[in-house]
Amino acid sequence: MIYETRFRSIAKAVSWRALGSLTTMAFVYAFTRRLDVTFFVGGLDALAKILLYFAHERTWNLLQWGRRPVEPAVLWFTGLSGSGKSTLAKGVYDALVEGGLRAEYLDGDELRRLFPDTGYSRAERDRHVRRAGHLAGMLEKNGVFVVVSLISPYAASRRAARALCRRFVEVHVSTPLAVCEKRDPKGLYARARRGELADFTGVQAPYEAPESCELVVDAGALSEKEALARVLGYLRARGVAAAS
Amino acid sequence: MIYETRFRSIAKAVSWRALGSLTTMAFVYAFTRRLDVTFFVGGLDALAKILLYFAHERTWNLLQWGRRPVEPAVLWFTGLSGSGKSTLAKGVYDALVEGGLRAEYLDGDELRRLFPDTGYSRAERDRHVRRAGHLAGMLEKNGVFVVVSLISPYAASRRAARALCRRFVEVHVSTPLAVCEKRDPKGLYARARRGELADFTGVQAPYEAPESCELVVDAGALSEKEALARVLGYLRARGVAAAS
Repeated sequence: MIYETRFRSIAKAVSWRALGSLTTMAFVYAFTRRLDVTFFVGGLDALAKILLYFAHERTWNLLQWGRRPVEPAVLWFTGLSGSGKSTLAKGVYDALVEGGLRAEYLDGDELRRLFPDTGYSRAERDRHVRRAGHLAGMLEKNGVFVVVSLISPYAASRRAARALCRRFVEVHVSTPLAVCEKRDPKGLYARARRGELADFTGVQAPYEAPESCELVVDAGALSEKEALARVLGYLRARGVAAAS
Repeated sequence: MIYETRFRSIAKAVSWRALGSLTTMAFVYAFTRRLDVTFFVGGLDALAKILLYFAHERTWNLLQWGRRPVEPAVLWFTGLSGSGKSTLAKGVYDALVEGGLRAEYLDGDELRRLFPDTGYSRAERDRHVRRAGHLAGMLEKNGVFVVVSLISPYAASRRAARALCRRFVEVHVSTPLAVCEKRDPKGLYARARRGELADFTGVQAPYEAPESCELVVDAGALSEKEALARVLGYLRARGVAAAS
């Protein structure tokens, strides 16, 4: 719920009066051609109206009718480790916050710090993704945009997360495995190839690419800036985050 | 972020005009004593102003200055099983929602369904309470009131949860153990006494009553309605949830 301060109402009353009194005085002068009447009527009218406007504004302020919260969405970034999905997701999150929207960023690594016992088996990943979906849905229901960056390699888990949200935008960051492995920003592919990590997506475990999702962005072929512009352009075109 | 519909602006323009035109016409008549001038000025003025008011309203609508979201809070209900804390917490949650506020209800049992592996040892309870605190803090940061109903028997865990939130109101539902055990709505005390449940708070595990918390409500001595009135009265007095 939003309320408006008294200062806002006073400033609106004053700015409206400047506009209103000049109009009234122009009409009075046009019909009477008398400057004294024009200024007397204009002056008294302005004084009375500024008080009335304030009272009118405060009364409307009690009424919620015609006020709408911006409809939020869950923006779910899925892709391989090293695909650039977190950089992209963070950029989208920053753009939403800059636009004055309530937004929350949920990152796979951070969520794992919150639920430290989560492993990497299919069942555990599935539960992890459902939990993230539940959390995202709860935030969305309360008017918060949620940007999720999670490998979420299984189509069924992503479907389950989608079902827990209202407006779900799945963005597949489709950077090819070879590019991700070459980048290997955290050295995880090297460790997985040496057998130090089990169930690593793309090495020992599969990544089920989305067959139909809202958007596909190849962050290997596009620059960071281009990838971000593509997502923001998509959101704008779909009316997501388009406030006024 | 909140935006206002065009219909709201039109309705405000019309209601303001009814007020404004009558005032202007009264002044014009008082100074000129001519009904024809009064109605000409009043009529043209009203027409011009209703359009100007709409434009003025839409312009202000683009400005966020002077608009404040209501500051939310985390209302944390702690107490023994069967103390009546969930009934009370649910009542407070309903009152917040009825007041037009964004609110979320987090219940111990429901959270355990989301994290099904959580046990009842001190370490596991501690992690459970911290997780709930983290979740509550995330919602609160995004403008949502959070009502938590959780036994949360250890003072240290409650302190940790408090540190994760901004405005934390700890409500100790202090119904005595003997009363809770007599009520035993889920038959849990009976099972714990028979040894079928381990680590049950109040039977095998301790409940560390808060030494200094924001509010203490004995839901054994008070009726449901009285207990609810006490909490809502406290919140009102502290300016929590007092909007407009």
